[in-house]
Amino acid sequence: MVLCVLDGLGGLPGPRGRSELETAATPHLDRLAQEGAIGQTVPAGHGITVGSGPGHTALFGLDPLQFDIGRGVLEATGIDFEIGPNDLAARGNLCTVDGDGKITDRRAGRVATEITAEIAQQLRTIELPGVEVFVEAVREHRFVLVLRGEGLSAAVTETDPQVEGEPPLPVEAIDDTASRTAELLNQFIAAGRELIKDRDQANHLTLRGWSTRPSLPQLPELWKLRAAACTVYPMYRGLARLVGMESIDGGDSLQTQYEALERHWDDYDFFFVHYKATDAAGEDGDFNRKVEAIAEFDRQLPQLLALKPDVLIIAGDHSTPATLAAHSWHPVPLLLSGATVRRDAARGFSEMLCATGGLGTIPAAEVLPTAFAHAGRLAKYGA
Amino acid sequence: MVLCVLDGLGGLPGPRGRSELETAATPHLDRLAQEGAIGQTVPAGHGITVGSGPGHTALFGLDPLQFDIGRGVLEATGIDFEIGPNDLAARGNLCTVDGDGKITDRRAGRVATEITAEIAQQLRTIELPGVEVFVEAVREHRFVLVLRGEGLSAAVTETDPQVEGEPPLPVEAIDDTASRTAELLNQFIAAGRELIKDRDQANHLTLRGWSTRPSLPQLPELWKLRAAACTVYPMYRGLARLVGMESIDGGDSLQTQYEALERHWDDYDFFFVHYKATDAAGEDGDFNRKVEAIAEFDRQLPQLLALKPDVLIIAGDHSTPATLAAHSWHPVPLLLSGATVRRDAARGFSEMLCATGGLGTIPAAEVLPTAFAHAGRLAKYGA
Repeated sequence: MVLCVLDGLGGLPGPRGRSELETAATPHLDRLAQEGAIGQTVPAGHGITVGSGPGHTALFGLDPLQFDIGRGVLEATGIDFEIGPNDLAARGNLCTVDGDGKITDRRAGRVATEITAEIAQQLRTIELPGVEVFVEAVREHRFVLVLRGEGLSAAVTETDPQVEGEPPLPVEAIDDTASRTAELLNQFIAAGRELIKDRDQANHLTLRGWSTRPSLPQLPELWKLRAAACTVYPMYRGLARLVGMESIDGGDSLQTQYEALERHWDDYDFFFVHYKATDAAGEDGDFNRKVEAIAEFDRQLPQLLALKPDVLIIAGDHSTPATLAAHSWHPVPLLLSGATVRRDAARGFSEMLCATGGLGTIPAAEVLPTAFAHAGRLAKYGA
Repeated sequence: MVLCVLDGLGGLPGPRGRSELETAATPHLDRLAQEGAIGQTVPAGHGITVGSGPGHTALFGLDPLQFDIGRGVLEATGIDFEIGPNDLAARGNLCTVDGDGKITDRRAGRVATEITAEIAQQLRTIELPGVEVFVEAVREHRFVLVLRGEGLSAAVTETDPQVEGEPPLPVEAIDDTASRTAELLNQFIAAGRELIKDRDQANHLTLRGWSTRPSLPQLPELWKLRAAACTVYPMYRGLARLVGMESIDGGDSLQTQYEALERHWDDYDFFFVHYKATDAAGEDGDFNRKVEAIAEFDRQLPQLLALKPDVLIIAGDHSTPATLAAHSWHPVPLLLSGATVRRDAARGFSEMLCATGGLGTIPAAEVLPTAFAHAGRLAKYGA
């Protein structure tokens, strides 16, 4: 079984009245749609725009409203930092404060990533009693802080006042179990400020999105199968790891991803393939580039089809219409292909056809169980 | 109101690219679809294949995941054994053990039903303190054991080791309330083994699926109506009885079933008619016989329509595609006919048309309330 996620697949009509998917030449997807069934997924609920975290949690078969992945953990996952069971993660921002300690720029002028990397190197020298400290630059002013040790709690307040003209807030314990954690974090902040206080900008920091490793049902145990993620970007590999998938090296393109699938074809029952280009173009508001990204996916499809998966799912984690240049709440096109799929009347693959496809409009979390059923992997309920 | 359940109605395309329903000549169903509305039901959840028990529980308006009917009770129901409030039922298998008491054949060579009937006659002579013992042959090596008495508990372990080369397991109490039950059952097994131990095959027995009468909401009280089941097979009559329906003699064909409806037309508000031939052919993998079973149902339909039901529901408890020769998870075609039904665009009755029908894709448990609404039997909610 293969789940291909075209990130941000769903779109909206562009200048010529047709969506990105409707504009792109997709002969292979259209043929699969004719022979199989289509529909559309709702990631978390009608009208809810989701980020990559909940979008993928849903496609991995879990209710994204029930199983939440905290901002700190998501950020760490995005830079391939593996969050362990005793880790507390936060998303950090470098900021600039004035002589009175009040924030003048919450993003420190979007300082260059290289500077943030230098500062991260300084910050990770801070020593705290009983815990390990990890600090990793992300991009521009963003970094990840991870404390590793027994008894850390995410029940602490955030330090970003969310407005300029105020000083960063101290960390406070929200409940009794978190008082030691709050103390450690305030020590970290004080030591960090001391290390960078003489800089013109990026001379202070804020921390938010406190989170620990989420306790998610693990795909291999839940469904009794061997599952592998084959992605180019670490974020998606990390999300898959949180639900228990192993990771195989996807290289840097669909071609190398499909080659990896071929090499590992007998090692796993289920593969998750992630394709980023559709979302990247959509987020940039570049309609034509998103059209081209979809067409490129379609051109590469024969390489995947040559592996003859029993069940192939083509899905998206959310819509990213180029006209909105952002994630959106619109349902996402879905295609299911395989010998036991009940064919519907659809003659192609597009938002308009998917809205009335035979699979209906279904919660994204139901896609994986349905696919597993089509692969004959689920037992009968009741006699 | 009439609910016609075509058992295992849903199918998949056969050799000529059309499903059983799409292949069969169904002029009357097609006309009803044109004048009424169609859709499809999901018995228990997307991707979940259900047995007859949960498939019917859902069509009777109950969530089949919430209201579970145990295997023993279902088996008893299937041979028209009425389970009472103090009954504990199990599905029994005759098996063959070697000189060391290890199972060599879990099904005793699928011994003839007549032999099992003889053995059942022996087994029901066993006397246990304070309880009545019932043993009834089902088919081949299968039988039903029912103990009747106060304080029996289903919290006991099963004795079938599920593999050959092991002896049958003793019954153990899962909690304290079940220790007397476990003791009685071990007495029964020891006495039973003693009675049949000299046979070459079928010289021992296993017991599983311990269950008591489920506490299901009763249709007549819940919906304030008089409901009758008119079936040919006892299993479906029994399932209907579990939700409080009365039973009227259906004879052995659709013709005799519809004649029974006519005789009792004024005695009840709701009739459940069960038609088995579709599922039987599907389970046998006989595409053409399933086509013919559907066509036969259609040919008999005018006899039912002549009774002029206010609301007629044509549904299935699950799909049984002949190409799979088994129950499947695919949604099931649904047709609703009656004066207050809002007509949709469908011009016929088929899986492909039902997938986009006006009733949508709905949980099977919502069909009955919807039908009752169309018969004007439900009051307004709120002012």
